[in-house]
Amino acid sequence: MEKGQLLYEGKAKRLYATNEENVLFVAYKDSATAFNGEKKEEIAGKGVLNNKITSLIFKKLHAAGIPSHFIRQISDTEQLVKKVEIIPIELVVRNIAAGSLATRLGIEEGTKLKRPIVEYYYKDDALGDPFITTEHIDILEIATPEEVETLYQKGLEVNAVLQPFFHEIGVTLVDFKLEFGRDEQGTVLLADEISPDTCRLWDEETKQHLDKDVFRRNLGSLTEVYEIILSRLGGFTK
Amino acid sequence: MEKGQLLYEGKAKRLYATNEENVLFVAYKDSATAFNGEKKEEIAGKGVLNNKITSLIFKKLHAAGIPSHFIRQISDTEQLVKKVEIIPIELVVRNIAAGSLATRLGIEEGTKLKRPIVEYYYKDDALGDPFITTEHIDILEIATPEEVETLYQKGLEVNAVLQPFFHEIGVTLVDFKLEFGRDEQGTVLLADEISPDTCRLWDEETKQHLDKDVFRRNLGSLTEVYEIILSRLGGFTK
Repeated sequence: MEKGQLLYEGKAKRLYATNEENVLFVAYKDSATAFNGEKKEEIAGKGVLNNKITSLIFKKLHAAGIPSHFIRQISDTEQLVKKVEIIPIELVVRNIAAGSLATRLGIEEGTKLKRPIVEYYYKDDALGDPFITTEHIDILEIATPEEVETLYQKGLEVNAVLQPFFHEIGVTLVDFKLEFGRDEQGTVLLADEISPDTCRLWDEETKQHLDKDVFRRNLGSLTEVYEIILSRLGGFTK
Repeated sequence: MEKGQLLYEGKAKRLYATNEENVLFVAYKDSATAFNGEKKEEIAGKGVLNNKITSLIFKKLHAAGIPSHFIRQISDTEQLVKKVEIIPIELVVRNIAAGSLATRLGIEEGTKLKRPIVEYYYKDDALGDPFITTEHIDILEIATPEEVETLYQKGLEVNAVLQPFFHEIGVTLVDFKLEFGRDEQGTVLLADEISPDTCRLWDEETKQHLDKDVFRRNLGSLTEVYEIILSRLGGFTK
């Protein structure tokens, strides 16, 4: 598979064409950003970690019957993925109150929710990725009501697989963000990445943050905690 | 009916007990507040205007088969209402993009929405009345799913009555906020007020703001535009 033209550069990844029309090449960058890009840093080794962690998690989801755009990992920082048209919605699934939910509702961070909840954010940097509802999605016409129902169900399915999976390795899946795209047939497919950049992961015993909150909140070395996640998932950086 | 003990003082109204257990006395104040109380002013005559406008609108809704807590206007600034336990949710119904919706979604103010939408805000001053979803309401346990469905339907019903009603008097009903309470039987009843404090009302021809945005945005005299609304509704200040 040949790496072709750069198609898109995001905050954490670059997308390249390949010699196959419906296959893209994803290269994970070492950039860490937070607060809609206001905080930004280059962290050597982050790209490798997120590429490997995302690859392991997408494989786990495939094995559990949840397809995604992921085809295979091809190098330390690179993956092949199916080409999809990204739906501009960030789906957030929450099991435990943290971050913006804790602030918004005045619930103490760490409080277990009585059931998982799903939130939608409009992927729009200029607007600051605002929190929106299914009625806003309808007004904006960024996804059909049927697609929104699919996103909601898939969000809960991914949670039902990942929550016990992380529990097995002593990690609490607090919340996570998913993105989806439409493939050439218009089918909604899980896309983007699933990594400590996009999940809140807490050590079950120590409650240590093993995710991007370490960067957001200046709690120590990002790569050290991402390496804990990778190694518990059975992966290796070297 | 005797005015009893002061039970509650809000930003715009005072509530008093009466000699009947399930009847309260509401006195409209001259206070104008905006931005969660950050902007505040006393505006002589505002209480009279909102009391009279709300009374006329609740009567209109009663005639259209939509009950509320309103019993009757008893003076320039006072009403009798049924006692209800207020549900801490502000329901916002929107026909046209304005205010926070225009900002949140990046839609130009004045854009007609393809259908009315309903939003929920958590009535909590300390949290700044945050925008929430039905799943947050479930987590917070501030209303049952059945009550939320009732609020949603009642919001659209009120809109279906008020939109043509305002159109008849040359006014566009852009959006409005409703509050609801539970009566002694636990029945959900429309409550609070419906006035230019709680509705965005634009002159159909001139697009002049005939509502609290005049105060929020320093567009002129609040009482002058509230008087336009009252007089078009067939009411008089004197």
